[in-house]
Amino acid sequence: MTAHAPATTLGPGPAVLAIDVGGTQVKAALLDEDGRLQGVTRHSTPRSGVDPGGAVIDAAVELLDAARRAGAPIAALGMTVPGIVDETRGVGVRSTNLGWQEYPFGELLAERSGLPSVVVHDVRAAAEAEARLGAARGIDDVAVVTIGTGIAAALRIGGRAYTGRGYAGELGHIVVDPSGPPCACGRVGCVEAIGSAAALVRRYRERGDHPVNDAADVLRRRQLHDPVAVAVWDSALAALGAGLAVLTSIMAPQAIVVGGGLSEAGAVLFDPLRAELDARCAGLWVPRLLRAELGQDAGTWGAAILARATLTPAPTKRNTDA
Amino acid sequence: MTAHAPATTLGPGPAVLAIDVGGTQVKAALLDEDGRLQGVTRHSTPRSGVDPGGAVIDAAVELLDAARRAGAPIAALGMTVPGIVDETRGVGVRSTNLGWQEYPFGELLAERSGLPSVVVHDVRAAAEAEARLGAARGIDDVAVVTIGTGIAAALRIGGRAYTGRGYAGELGHIVVDPSGPPCACGRVGCVEAIGSAAALVRRYRERGDHPVNDAADVLRRRQLHDPVAVAVWDSALAALGAGLAVLTSIMAPQAIVVGGGLSEAGAVLFDPLRAELDARCAGLWVPRLLRAELGQDAGTWGAAILARATLTPAPTKRNTDA
Repeated sequence: MTAHAPATTLGPGPAVLAIDVGGTQVKAALLDEDGRLQGVTRHSTPRSGVDPGGAVIDAAVELLDAARRAGAPIAALGMTVPGIVDETRGVGVRSTNLGWQEYPFGELLAERSGLPSVVVHDVRAAAEAEARLGAARGIDDVAVVTIGTGIAAALRIGGRAYTGRGYAGELGHIVVDPSGPPCACGRVGCVEAIGSAAALVRRYRERGDHPVNDAADVLRRRQLHDPVAVAVWDSALAALGAGLAVLTSIMAPQAIVVGGGLSEAGAVLFDPLRAELDARCAGLWVPRLLRAELGQDAGTWGAAILARATLTPAPTKRNTDA
Repeated sequence: MTAHAPATTLGPGPAVLAIDVGGTQVKAALLDEDGRLQGVTRHSTPRSGVDPGGAVIDAAVELLDAARRAGAPIAALGMTVPGIVDETRGVGVRSTNLGWQEYPFGELLAERSGLPSVVVHDVRAAAEAEARLGAARGIDDVAVVTIGTGIAAALRIGGRAYTGRGYAGELGHIVVDPSGPPCACGRVGCVEAIGSAAALVRRYRERGDHPVNDAADVLRRRQLHDPVAVAVWDSALAALGAGLAVLTSIMAPQAIVVGGGLSEAGAVLFDPLRAELDARCAGLWVPRLLRAELGQDAGTWGAAILARATLTPAPTKRNTDA
């Protein structure tokens, strides 16, 4: 699906730098004045036991300097971070994977760059991009779910993001199997502990006979009828189905858009997941299950969209009244 | 808590008739021109295998006729119905308990009464009342949960009802124990099958040695250390805690307001339920857990509030622009 991303455009506007900080990779790209993403680069996510937030800020400033040296007229900066993010304050409240707590990314980024800067939750950024340019376009009530190293949902209600002060959409830590495996969060049987790409690898390695590097390897083993891979994959689908059914019971979205690394599996994931969702929602609301369209660049697109939005604020009620 | 309801007032406005149709009882009351609920009456919910929706409409029209004969100047009609309700169309989409499907309550009520009429989901009506006059007052993101014969939640986001076209807040049919008891909905281990007032009675009767008529009887047996009552009550608390934790993971409400029959138990319910919720939400968002303030009259208040709203539409954006 990433194939059609190069044709995607946001339309004319200021050029901005978009940085998408993931658990393993930092992606960066320039959104040019025509509204196209240019020269996506990938780097390992910097880690620091002492100052994990500062390491990310340093990396972002280096990326900005490099882009400026290349002559790009950058007007604003948009950066995604994982974990729990308070977008109103620009604060990374907590990232279990990367290790920060209450880190003022927005303030520091603006200070170090001298540019209008916006910090946004990675999955929320992807949802913004899917809503503007991708599979969630034109859908009022929609959940965008990312299945990768972790699992999270970004909710849009009545065509607008609903973040619950940064805490909504914690789909990954819903307990779906009280007798399931332990989760990094301290609970047992969370969706993420069974259904994430990372869980597929970890759970295969615990019992499987073959080396696997990633979820695609586990899927390959499953297609060879490796019984451990079959069991691990089937339980992942059941956990994902249960999680999406719970999300549906609470929010009844018109559609659920699934992206992230695991969504690259395509029909092998979507066909049985749709069947799980249909069965579990029988007699209740059944949302459409859609594949995300912006692929691995969704977060980068979202960061770019929100960076531009800092320069051209949408008309608010107050503006209208004035 | 019902004790302070008589002092509650909506303020001056037109008089309306409010009818709250529950699974076992129909309550009706006049909201007078001072904004006070007058003369709440209770009747058994009419049931009809042939025309279950028509039986409810007939009962509503009789209540209206009686109120008119008593000289009340009724300007509008508000009625709650249980199950899944499409409030935009005024249609009772489905009630498993009472047996209708796609029943046009709003249209028929307006036709038979000759009055502006509004049909609303019973729990949504209770939430409207708690938001206007009770425990949810002034809270932007809040879930109002009713625990009675069934279990359901009404969501308010940014200070406005979010209904998901009638399907949001289906808390009762979230599966929290895949090895739990069967639910009337066809699933196994739903919150409602373990944690509702009806489930407490049914599950005690299956194994207990004493006759029980209602959830209060089961609670009394528990306080006498009847081991069956202790087990049934503890599993109900665990199921309710798991359900509220799931609701929190998805929506992260600032507060959860709990009402309905079981909430009459007071601290015996709320103290351990708060502990369950705290433990299950550890490391994530923990909402405040509040007791509903309008007691058994919340649905009636909500129907009255929404009936008045049909006569005095709130200013909309379009009005502002004109």
